[in-house]
Amino acid sequence: MTLREILGTELPVIQAPMAGVQLSALTVAVCNAGGLGSLPCAMLEPAAIRKELFAIHSQTNRPYNVNFFCHEQPVHLPERDAAWLAALAPYYEEFGIDAAAIPKGPARIPFDAAAAAVIEEFKPKVVSFHFGLPSPELMARVKAMGSKVLSSATTVEEAIWLERHGVDAVIAQGVEAGGHRGMFLTDDIATQVGTFALVPQVVKAVKVPVIAAGGIADAKGVAAAMALGASGVQVGTAYLLCPEVTTTPMHRAALRSESARATVLTNVFTGRPSRGIVNRLVREVGPISPLAPQFPLAAPAVAPLRARAESLGSGDFSPLWSGQNASGCREIPAGELTRELARGLAWARNGAP
Amino acid sequence: MTLREILGTELPVIQAPMAGVQLSALTVAVCNAGGLGSLPCAMLEPAAIRKELFAIHSQTNRPYNVNFFCHEQPVHLPERDAAWLAALAPYYEEFGIDAAAIPKGPARIPFDAAAAAVIEEFKPKVVSFHFGLPSPELMARVKAMGSKVLSSATTVEEAIWLERHGVDAVIAQGVEAGGHRGMFLTDDIATQVGTFALVPQVVKAVKVPVIAAGGIADAKGVAAAMALGASGVQVGTAYLLCPEVTTTPMHRAALRSESARATVLTNVFTGRPSRGIVNRLVREVGPISPLAPQFPLAAPAVAPLRARAESLGSGDFSPLWSGQNASGCREIPAGELTRELARGLAWARNGAP
Repeated sequence: MTLREILGTELPVIQAPMAGVQLSALTVAVCNAGGLGSLPCAMLEPAAIRKELFAIHSQTNRPYNVNFFCHEQPVHLPERDAAWLAALAPYYEEFGIDAAAIPKGPARIPFDAAAAAVIEEFKPKVVSFHFGLPSPELMARVKAMGSKVLSSATTVEEAIWLERHGVDAVIAQGVEAGGHRGMFLTDDIATQVGTFALVPQVVKAVKVPVIAAGGIADAKGVAAAMALGASGVQVGTAYLLCPEVTTTPMHRAALRSESARATVLTNVFTGRPSRGIVNRLVREVGPISPLAPQFPLAAPAVAPLRARAESLGSGDFSPLWSGQNASGCREIPAGELTRELARGLAWARNGAP
Repeated sequence: MTLREILGTELPVIQAPMAGVQLSALTVAVCNAGGLGSLPCAMLEPAAIRKELFAIHSQTNRPYNVNFFCHEQPVHLPERDAAWLAALAPYYEEFGIDAAAIPKGPARIPFDAAAAAVIEEFKPKVVSFHFGLPSPELMARVKAMGSKVLSSATTVEEAIWLERHGVDAVIAQGVEAGGHRGMFLTDDIATQVGTFALVPQVVKAVKVPVIAAGGIADAKGVAAAMALGASGVQVGTAYLLCPEVTTTPMHRAALRSESARATVLTNVFTGRPSRGIVNRLVREVGPISPLAPQFPLAAPAVAPLRARAESLGSGDFSPLWSGQNASGCREIPAGELTRELARGLAWARNGAP
């Protein structure tokens, strides 16, 4: 099957799911422009997922993608939690926050039976996963509802693993990509691969279509990804200034500034490496802290710092997720951006204008 | 001026200078195929440079590039040397090497007046630098002989700096690239940028032509780089199996194996971050060791380990330099590879076949 047949869309352009900064408004806008809009569910309870899926169905009849994290939920280790709170103690003191009062609940929920039950009501055309794939039982439920399955590979080995475990297409996530690295067979960020090197090697290694992600910011980037052998693209960062996205003012300001040139992979916000713009917490505690508890248990301890700092107009403690190429961020409707990106598809076939 | 006017070549395809694995044979083969062959001089004494330049002039009348490192030669710090020898002591013991007998001479020489005097005899069309640019006096000598000057930028800031300091074109060296990072305004490898993100941002930031480097392995990669706005490409790793290159059998075997998928930036061979295939020394001492003396002073201590291991048929202690995309390595003449790469130039303009 070709990627367009798998996705069911006019355009092989996927809007990257971006948990925390978007709900269904972005999904709908991209779908109605002919791309594949995505709904990130990693931070949504089942009731919230259902509400957003109703919203999508009321505004478009186009195919869409529902995205889930599929990490194993870790066990709370009190000594690790305590070490992390101790590392952040100077900031609690600075902001007058009572560390003992911080809730410890998980900030991100892996795909589970409850989520599967919700999406079975809607039977989305596409379901994508991050951090590998869910259990065989859950995978079977997703396949049984007729959904096509995508997941991200950050190495050739991960791409081969995903193909063997039944994905319909592989997202080759180059190291330039913003947000969480999808890595699941390695935790060594030193061996993560750039889009330019990853895409052609994944294309050679698997038979399923390959979607390029990481550093693609405009039509030229789309043309380049297609030239490398990709069947489509997934773009996230470029959408972050669109009116349909709930990016905070601090995050928007950072994306527009020269500081967006300096992103790093950091684990200080969640416990897993995720690419964002360097800010105070990253600089002083990270970018990679050995004290951060296992994903996603690092997040609750940072939440009150973020809230307090943002209430003062500061992004010093916010995850300013961004890929390495924020140069495509523009304050235009997401549908317009989708159609502009899609111009690059023809350039790869016919030459650039 | 366009890049082709600057380089004086038929093709805007530069063979990356690769000190330690090539002399003039590769340079000549690439030049005679219409590309810009490069002679790396970082590990050559003036007499050796002269000999190689005579060899080039006797075999081609095409333009060529002479490449130099331009780091500041560091001061020997006996306590750092001792700490580095101590870190490597278990290996000296394993191989029966007398650490006290290891010479401490510099392994790489920066561009200096002696080197300038040699190239003034030959007036190369192009001189490229790595690690920034030499002193204003030396730059003036290079410009006075009519040579065009290139240097590598690993960030947008470095590209802007290079343009301000007089380069004729900027090489945008993405993090995928093999060998030494050209970084000179930062030593933070965490903020190094992939080719896909770096090239378009550098193209927007400077007026001089931009040459893409890092992860380009074949004609598709060349087409992709051109789609991103590059005016030309610099390719290194893909040449490493060519008969004109003196790549060791261990290095060739590593490039052909699946281990070539796992490269890292490591400072254990020279003291500066350089991308190569993971081997025993990198795994056990690196990839980044705080004990490695300042570049290039880490190198002499590793040299006898490399020599002993290679005499036993092992690449465990050899710098197996490679970019993140070794999939283009083929045992074909360098001229043929150059012409194959050049096919991608037309694909970017007219569409891929």
